[in-house]
Amino acid sequence: MPSRPRDDDPTLGELSEGEILRAILARTAQATHALIGPGDDAAVIAAPSGSVVATTDTLVHGPDFRLAWSSGYDLGWKAAAVNLADVAAMGARPTALLVALAVPRDLRLSFVERLADGFREACAALAPGCAVVGGDLTVSDVLTVAVTALGDLEGRAPVTRSGARIGDVVAVAGELGHAAQGLAVLFGRFREGDQPVPVDAAALAAGESAALAAQLRPSPPIGLGPFAATAGATAMMDISDGLALDARRMAAASEVTIALDSASLGEDPLRALAGGEDHALLATFPAGILPPGFRVIGAVAPRGEHDLLVDGAPADVSGWDPYRDWDSTSG
Amino acid sequence: MPSRPRDDDPTLGELSEGEILRAILARTAQATHALIGPGDDAAVIAAPSGSVVATTDTLVHGPDFRLAWSSGYDLGWKAAAVNLADVAAMGARPTALLVALAVPRDLRLSFVERLADGFREACAALAPGCAVVGGDLTVSDVLTVAVTALGDLEGRAPVTRSGARIGDVVAVAGELGHAAQGLAVLFGRFREGDQPVPVDAAALAAGESAALAAQLRPSPPIGLGPFAATAGATAMMDISDGLALDARRMAAASEVTIALDSASLGEDPLRALAGGEDHALLATFPAGILPPGFRVIGAVAPRGEHDLLVDGAPADVSGWDPYRDWDSTSG
Repeated sequence: MPSRPRDDDPTLGELSEGEILRAILARTAQATHALIGPGDDAAVIAAPSGSVVATTDTLVHGPDFRLAWSSGYDLGWKAAAVNLADVAAMGARPTALLVALAVPRDLRLSFVERLADGFREACAALAPGCAVVGGDLTVSDVLTVAVTALGDLEGRAPVTRSGARIGDVVAVAGELGHAAQGLAVLFGRFREGDQPVPVDAAALAAGESAALAAQLRPSPPIGLGPFAATAGATAMMDISDGLALDARRMAAASEVTIALDSASLGEDPLRALAGGEDHALLATFPAGILPPGFRVIGAVAPRGEHDLLVDGAPADVSGWDPYRDWDSTSG
Repeated sequence: MPSRPRDDDPTLGELSEGEILRAILARTAQATHALIGPGDDAAVIAAPSGSVVATTDTLVHGPDFRLAWSSGYDLGWKAAAVNLADVAAMGARPTALLVALAVPRDLRLSFVERLADGFREACAALAPGCAVVGGDLTVSDVLTVAVTALGDLEGRAPVTRSGARIGDVVAVAGELGHAAQGLAVLFGRFREGDQPVPVDAAALAAGESAALAAQLRPSPPIGLGPFAATAGATAMMDISDGLALDARRMAAASEVTIALDSASLGEDPLRALAGGEDHALLATFPAGILPPGFRVIGAVAPRGEHDLLVDGAPADVSGWDPYRDWDSTSG
């Protein structure tokens, strides 16, 4: 390795892969379910139920986040949270994350260190016992964070999105529409022309700060996933693309119609229906069962002409995604 | 969804996510260990041993492959193979792949379909019973394939890289140096200036064709990983960065010195020592044990001044990686 100029916060291009990995691993080491952790060809994770729940989700700079708005810590936290939510939505407890990072050479080491901090603290806060057990580091012009989350069902049957039964109640745990509100604040207030500019925290109202946090560092109710499964949830999924779109998917998979009551959707029902990225849990339970942390928002009806009814009428609300038309040439 | 012009091979930007996923899933559906496959929040995979082996490895356009040289089929095959090799190197049998694709909008559907074919056929050929059970699709300017592979130990203890013992024999299964030879053919013969150009198969000698196949569609001896573990391997790893570098890593982790015999390394020992990406299996066995498929290349000695000796002398051979200085501005 040739000698090279170093400063307090070198770029990744100035460091060896080993140096970068050591900096990351020093920050992600936690007590875990891993029987063998980072450093070998593969990790080995306990799967006492005799099965493993596995999901993968990727955040790409541009379509999924902007560096002007998200810190390294935010990015690590969110990449962990969205994957943990998918494990929880099966009724499983998250046990391990694998993180594949593709990083530009001009990224600073401090950014990656804070990314590792975000992963660690999201696991500790949302899914205690889960930790980063492995990963991969490559070079790319586009910062990309691909995460795989594993989980254990602890003897429970997995809760799919296809099990909703006529007469069940429809319930949610977690926020609805806050992440979309946060995204609207970013797009509406923190751009100059087409370019994102850093958030001025002093310029935010209290509700805006909470909405931004929901967008940048979401805190889905991970622990309520296994809890709902134990309580008898018949179907469950996490709401990533908006309640309306995801409730439709559950209804179609279950061959039922889901009927929602807008009065149960908070002060802005349209935002609750359309806004994505909250990663709240949508679940159905047999009538009479409602675990703490869940609130009823509707009922499961026999399959009719429409997948989804809101206040008895077909709902014409699609998931809302201002990133969809991301164009790298315009920022 | 607005109507749009279609042709026989649309770009991904002309298709919805659902259309692309249906095209992929139609090609990756295989009999699998999955209790729940694609289509829910997460997959559920059998883990009868009560633990799961998990590893992730990413291929990024530029540093890891060039579209001028690799077809979609090649890319899917290689992305599967390199991850399967990491599972096998723990002594586990691969059970499932999760594939996170980040794709440019101008990529053609046929490319992604052939990518799916490559994943399916690599699993069928190298690790029967393993299949793609889940994934993720996002947009990126840089084509990126992040794969997670899972495996089951079938009751065996995992074989780490740190278990080599003094007196063990050092053995390999699989090719050494062929993938590097293939890369040298690509860099030496199929560029114009700095730009890669498509391979002219008619211009290749027989040995060159085999070397190119080893580089573009490697076939590591996946089945020999579990076999070596059953036979009593004390340490094992896959050779991704060249025999010399990876043998050093095994020696350091095991706190021994590995002594290789260059006469056992084929007709070009230097290429065998330095060339990466073959994903052969490097293993140590107690003296007197050598499973079919492995050949002895050295012995484990007490830890000395050097991690690695070749013919009794310190080996000054580093892994060879012409991609390391990839610069997207020069191609």
